[in-house]
Amino acid sequence: MKDPVLSTLGRRTAEPAISWLMHAALAHPHLISLAAGFTDNESLPVADARALLNDILRSPRTGRAALQYGTTLGDPELRRLTAQRLRRLDGARGKPKAYSPERMIITNGSQQLLYMVAEALCDPGDLVLVEDPTYFVYLDILQSRGIRAQGVRLERDGLDLAHLKTVLERLRRGDGLRRVKMLYLVSYYQNPTGVTTSFAKKRAALTLLKKYERAAGHPIYLIEDTAYRELRFAGKDVKSVLAATEFSERVILAGTYSKPFATGVRVGFGFLPEPVFTAVTRIKGNHDFGTSNLLQQLLAHALASGRYDRHLRLLCKRYAHKALVMRRALAAHFPKAVEWPEPAGGLYFWARLPKGISAGVKSKVFQTALKNDVLYVPGELCYANDPSRVKPDNEMRISFGSASEENIRKGIVRLGAVLKKFV
Amino acid sequence: MKDPVLSTLGRRTAEPAISWLMHAALAHPHLISLAAGFTDNESLPVADARALLNDILRSPRTGRAALQYGTTLGDPELRRLTAQRLRRLDGARGKPKAYSPERMIITNGSQQLLYMVAEALCDPGDLVLVEDPTYFVYLDILQSRGIRAQGVRLERDGLDLAHLKTVLERLRRGDGLRRVKMLYLVSYYQNPTGVTTSFAKKRAALTLLKKYERAAGHPIYLIEDTAYRELRFAGKDVKSVLAATEFSERVILAGTYSKPFATGVRVGFGFLPEPVFTAVTRIKGNHDFGTSNLLQQLLAHALASGRYDRHLRLLCKRYAHKALVMRRALAAHFPKAVEWPEPAGGLYFWARLPKGISAGVKSKVFQTALKNDVLYVPGELCYANDPSRVKPDNEMRISFGSASEENIRKGIVRLGAVLKKFV
Repeated sequence: MKDPVLSTLGRRTAEPAISWLMHAALAHPHLISLAAGFTDNESLPVADARALLNDILRSPRTGRAALQYGTTLGDPELRRLTAQRLRRLDGARGKPKAYSPERMIITNGSQQLLYMVAEALCDPGDLVLVEDPTYFVYLDILQSRGIRAQGVRLERDGLDLAHLKTVLERLRRGDGLRRVKMLYLVSYYQNPTGVTTSFAKKRAALTLLKKYERAAGHPIYLIEDTAYRELRFAGKDVKSVLAATEFSERVILAGTYSKPFATGVRVGFGFLPEPVFTAVTRIKGNHDFGTSNLLQQLLAHALASGRYDRHLRLLCKRYAHKALVMRRALAAHFPKAVEWPEPAGGLYFWARLPKGISAGVKSKVFQTALKNDVLYVPGELCYANDPSRVKPDNEMRISFGSASEENIRKGIVRLGAVLKKFV
Repeated sequence: MKDPVLSTLGRRTAEPAISWLMHAALAHPHLISLAAGFTDNESLPVADARALLNDILRSPRTGRAALQYGTTLGDPELRRLTAQRLRRLDGARGKPKAYSPERMIITNGSQQLLYMVAEALCDPGDLVLVEDPTYFVYLDILQSRGIRAQGVRLERDGLDLAHLKTVLERLRRGDGLRRVKMLYLVSYYQNPTGVTTSFAKKRAALTLLKKYERAAGHPIYLIEDTAYRELRFAGKDVKSVLAATEFSERVILAGTYSKPFATGVRVGFGFLPEPVFTAVTRIKGNHDFGTSNLLQQLLAHALASGRYDRHLRLLCKRYAHKALVMRRALAAHFPKAVEWPEPAGGLYFWARLPKGISAGVKSKVFQTALKNDVLYVPGELCYANDPSRVKPDNEMRISFGSASEENIRKGIVRLGAVLKKFV
């Protein structure tokens, strides 16, 4: 779209990859989509939501409070409960500053927090370090705002610290560090790879970033996107960056209640140090002066009543089962040459075809899959542009989130048959 | 806040006037606030919301749909009902393009639409024409984004067309037209003045803007903020800019269900022509990929069931009564030299003190009012900066929206006593 009336941002904002995939889905009515990041439909907490909303709206006092404007920062009780929950998850003792409800803001899903932090910190031409690959909608945000993304490789246990150092060194030598504002990590069951970054690695990354601040001339933040943290069905939980309390002025945490509770209830949150906290709060005032109070009350009551945790336990069992269904189908129907590490949480498998076989948007694999009514997310969409390496195109993100068990099986059978033609 | 790590936008985003007023309110626990733009608390549709949400969440089918992600554009049924409603309000025949659900997007209140349109159209340094005075949070948005605002005077029946022409001519001569992207009008029971702009004037403004497009080198839009339209308690409704169908490629309409239904349910909408529609849709995808489905379903069911209209009739009666209470109190307790036109809708009276008597933030009037536990919005906050005229500071916005009848009376008695000291 070229039109001189649009702003630079308006012209730069590209059609998101995700909407292109949705169009593909609409054009194929019998399609099984293993692409969508939607959550499991059958386990949505319909009865819980109904009971909670009835409680809230039964009394004029709580009912009116839920239907009136709140504050830009969000409901104090929801912020208190959220801060408490994070402290408990991280096993924090006392009340460290990093977990203070005073540095929390409630947002429309964690997505809005990611957007506003980018607005508050980054000018066009600035640089954000991201995992290589990373959450593709985040790449869309950066691209729209004219912010450059630089990928940092992933290992099985998360961020490749040696590569992070290489990247920072290269930037320092080229005087590019001045433009580096933050490192964005999707650190739990990462979208798209399923990889989790250990706490030790997160702390080491913070230590490393700190060393480069003098050359940068300003703080470099680590923003941790914990969207999938609570969707854990194997292994142990990992502490968040907030637990690295010696870095509490450098860590930003983005969290969400949408995925663990209900995606139709768009409530996320952020913990932010100054000056980012104040800037983001003001920006939020301009966006919408506060997230819907009704949704916030719903979450606050869900947390306080224990319904949230009960639902979460069910949900994690459900995803464990769906992941198992997918794993078995993959083992039975995918060619042996295709690799897929087993996720311990989240919604995705990340499958890697042998080198040289493309699974990209224009590849025969993708086009044949579409013809055979099965859709996945081509892995190449999750990589930042980077002239220093060839963008990998032999990977696919396959989701067990929204598809039924039957469709997971059928979808993998179809996809396996397609792959066998090319692998 | 000065910190080199923040972006230009982050540094530019000032503390909103509104939060300053909130702090003032918190510091005075016995304060009667006639400042807040909050809506009437007692009439919030608690029972309606409960019944509607019960209906939606009773069946797994509709319940799950409400708790799952939707699309970025918003629920098709809510868009259809909204488009139909606008056509009916405007008495439109047939299905003119301007009212098509295909050019509609659902947003988090109309505020988010205003923000995204500014993102899509305006670069820093661009110019938006606004009413003089205008909605102060809109001025905050523009300021944050580095967009200049140029005021156009208001008359009793709305925009001063002669002044609009003067402003456009001056810009043309100075080569400033290239930066003019739109005219922003709060055209119904305007915030802050209560003034309504007639349909004839809106159409005449569009005709005038069109004439200057050649010199501008691009379209100039009229964005109409209809936030208060449905809160009408006297006089006749006025057609929206969508009814000027010959200008359908130049009009943007921002509407909201928050104020007429429940402010805790943040659902607004926009009608936009291309290329603004596509740009805003993509930006919305980056902000939050869609407004909460649960809230959208609630509104769609409220509209379809007739509960929305029944509630609205009650609400308008309630505001008519509260406005009457305020009018009587003003007549009884304000000095005769203070003028206040009578609003036919909305939430505000706009009172003008004799020239030379300041009601501004630093004025004795405002400070004394605060000491006497009554708060209003100083009118000066609603004016754009403009070196070509002295910013009026002798006005006050007084709201009957959220205060109880008793507090409206008490508040006006207090404010009247303060004014009598100075007028």
